[in-house]
Amino acid sequence: MPFELTSIFIDNFKDAIEQKNVGFLKEQLHELYPADIAQVLNRLSVAESSYVYELLDEDTAPEVLLELDDDTREELLAKFSAKKIAEQIDNMDSDDAADVVSELPEEMQDQVLSHMEDIEQASDIAELINYEEGTAGSLMAKELVSVYSFETVNACIDEIRKQTDNVDVMYAVYVVDNNEKFIGVLSLKKLIVSHPLARVEEIYESDAQFVKTNTSSEEVAEVMQKHDLVVLPVVDQLGRLVGRITIDDVVDVIKEAADENIQRMSGISDDVDTNDNVWRLSRARIPWLLVGMCGGIVGSRIIGTYESQIMIHPEMAYFIPLIGAMGGNVGVQSSAIIVQALANNTLIGDRIGPKLLKELSVGMVNGFICSMLILAYAFLTEDWQLSATVSVALFTVILFASFLGTFVPLTMNKFKINPALATGPFVTTLNDIIGITIYFLVGRILYGAF
Amino acid sequence: MPFELTSIFIDNFKDAIEQKNVGFLKEQLHELYPADIAQVLNRLSVAESSYVYELLDEDTAPEVLLELDDDTREELLAKFSAKKIAEQIDNMDSDDAADVVSELPEEMQDQVLSHMEDIEQASDIAELINYEEGTAGSLMAKELVSVYSFETVNACIDEIRKQTDNVDVMYAVYVVDNNEKFIGVLSLKKLIVSHPLARVEEIYESDAQFVKTNTSSEEVAEVMQKHDLVVLPVVDQLGRLVGRITIDDVVDVIKEAADENIQRMSGISDDVDTNDNVWRLSRARIPWLLVGMCGGIVGSRIIGTYESQIMIHPEMAYFIPLIGAMGGNVGVQSSAIIVQALANNTLIGDRIGPKLLKELSVGMVNGFICSMLILAYAFLTEDWQLSATVSVALFTVILFASFLGTFVPLTMNKFKINPALATGPFVTTLNDIIGITIYFLVGRILYGAF
Repeated sequence: MPFELTSIFIDNFKDAIEQKNVGFLKEQLHELYPADIAQVLNRLSVAESSYVYELLDEDTAPEVLLELDDDTREELLAKFSAKKIAEQIDNMDSDDAADVVSELPEEMQDQVLSHMEDIEQASDIAELINYEEGTAGSLMAKELVSVYSFETVNACIDEIRKQTDNVDVMYAVYVVDNNEKFIGVLSLKKLIVSHPLARVEEIYESDAQFVKTNTSSEEVAEVMQKHDLVVLPVVDQLGRLVGRITIDDVVDVIKEAADENIQRMSGISDDVDTNDNVWRLSRARIPWLLVGMCGGIVGSRIIGTYESQIMIHPEMAYFIPLIGAMGGNVGVQSSAIIVQALANNTLIGDRIGPKLLKELSVGMVNGFICSMLILAYAFLTEDWQLSATVSVALFTVILFASFLGTFVPLTMNKFKINPALATGPFVTTLNDIIGITIYFLVGRILYGAF
Repeated sequence: MPFELTSIFIDNFKDAIEQKNVGFLKEQLHELYPADIAQVLNRLSVAESSYVYELLDEDTAPEVLLELDDDTREELLAKFSAKKIAEQIDNMDSDDAADVVSELPEEMQDQVLSHMEDIEQASDIAELINYEEGTAGSLMAKELVSVYSFETVNACIDEIRKQTDNVDVMYAVYVVDNNEKFIGVLSLKKLIVSHPLARVEEIYESDAQFVKTNTSSEEVAEVMQKHDLVVLPVVDQLGRLVGRITIDDVVDVIKEAADENIQRMSGISDDVDTNDNVWRLSRARIPWLLVGMCGGIVGSRIIGTYESQIMIHPEMAYFIPLIGAMGGNVGVQSSAIIVQALANNTLIGDRIGPKLLKELSVGMVNGFICSMLILAYAFLTEDWQLSATVSVALFTVILFASFLGTFVPLTMNKFKINPALATGPFVTTLNDIIGITIYFLVGRILYGAF
């Protein structure tokens, strides 16, 4: 049964902390997985969570630390001594340890590293924290099993036996030449079925994927997904094997990219979550609201030029929201499909023309259905000029919105601007303005002509 | 250098196919990875792609087949004999092979299985295709290394040597009891450092994660992410070890869920992509367009009740689009944050109250900024009653939209309806209607009072 965190559980837990009911707390903690404990700590005050953290056993505590939300971890670590932090990260995988250390203030980083017992781990961390965020270097771990190409299978098995001391799960054996340059991968299977005196260079696979330390995380994710890899070796500028990335770290990259896309499409311009403070949340949203407001002002100027028409035919105003809303909806639908296809690289090598044509066909179908329905409705309630105006305008607006919803993100992508930015507020605002213009133009023509 | 598919490349490739320039084609194919070749084939007609497929060597062809888009693969397989398909899947991992077979028409499935050389693989596939889509059973592969708990380390290493014949990368050694029941995991490290005569039961880890064959893919993804797993064992209803899931398959589940969320939020009610036909694309979009249209009609009725007011003050109509658009924008922003938090499970155990309060505070801040700006603008261009109306209405609308954008998805989630559905069209439509009502109400009060 997976653990379900409830507010009742939290309340009981907080009560137990207040009463310093260590027995109850330890019993509860013993039954939970590190990730579940972290979920609980995320909901507690820093005083409460550091109290609970002290109750965790040596092996569990570091795992819980890794699973905490960034904010909770930061608060908690700020209460720890350098020695205490060093103890926590001594047995972590090097990439996890480096993540923890890189979040600390700079002077604390040095202190923590100097307190570490495992000197090799400390030097690995010192190396890893230097890589820029968002690069393969910042994602990789130092723990790996590598053999020289000139070794025999037998020597190689001995070597692996020695090296697996640092490695929990062995994903692959990497092969390097005399200069530590990465040249390929040796499968366990090959190793076991080959003659004990065969040399690695005769049996390894040279056609292996790898990335450089400065490759972007996005490209790492792309390479791993494209080739269905669970682990990917990382080399430095000289081609020397320096680490490996496992897919669980890349899953986070993929999820973050998807989350960011959703936020951009919703007109949120900064990476925020529900736990951020009011000011940060407000600031992330105001830019696109202001853009939307400017769009609204332009809309008001356009309608303003039709003032005399509205005075004679105030019923023209009735359908302003409908026209605006439909343009917005269609635009978002069209651009969402395009943004998604761009994010998944399914449009590479395609030409824009056929996509536009298809999107316009969809617009024609749905535009026709909607405009016929609104014609029927309006005909029953309004005069025939207004009915015709709404119907013709709606059809035109849907077509335009389909076109813009497709064209804008494709064009932005061409100019290396994130197309997700275009999808929500920009396309909606543009379609609003165009929709109103079309509506009043059609209205003037139809009312004027008859 | 990663391969970049260009339309020039495709054109040259198509020309070479037409001229049956086998030398050129083979040379090009030789330089590409299977995933890249698949990308090329996705752009060709079925006649062209089956011609190219025949040029691929034995080892590459099955890998390319797996990387093709579903549609392309379906078309291609339809041209193959049962024997040919059997050859392609004989050496695939069982989960990949099962995916291919399950896409075939039923009578073809039996024929393909009967043509397979590897009887064990055929029986594995026959088992796997029976699991329902979206369950752990449909994601798992049969290839794994397992040992009995009563074996000694030495016997165990021999056993592993035998079993790795089927396994390319060894992720973990699974431990089962006499009845094949899964009881835990043995790390390679433990195996190597332990005494050769130690028994597995003394050294294995019993506290291992696993799922059942009927566990949903979403839960599988959650468990693997929560515990940072690269591989997860699968047991049947009796607890017997029957397979394992690797994270690369789960990455697809995660990406699909994110894509689906984006589509729902954009008012697309079916899982579509740019390659679907016009009719399917239209049908996926029309439902929410009709909802939006009903909203627009309601809006028109509301405005209709203020006809006399518009006749006297036609300038009231100017700001209808602005009010509608801002309500929509704020609502989408608020709900996107909530939908995302729900999808990432970061709201579990939280109470709704504080979230609403925070969202309302954000609404107040941004509402205040926007309403002051629009007041300044309107004051310069319009009379003071209209300025005050727009400003007060805008502030109120932003507050309402913040509230609804938070409340609606949280409520839908409570009733087990996908909250992403609520985000785009529903909240937008609702806010449109409420916005107009507020605007004209405020207008009537202000114009009426003074």
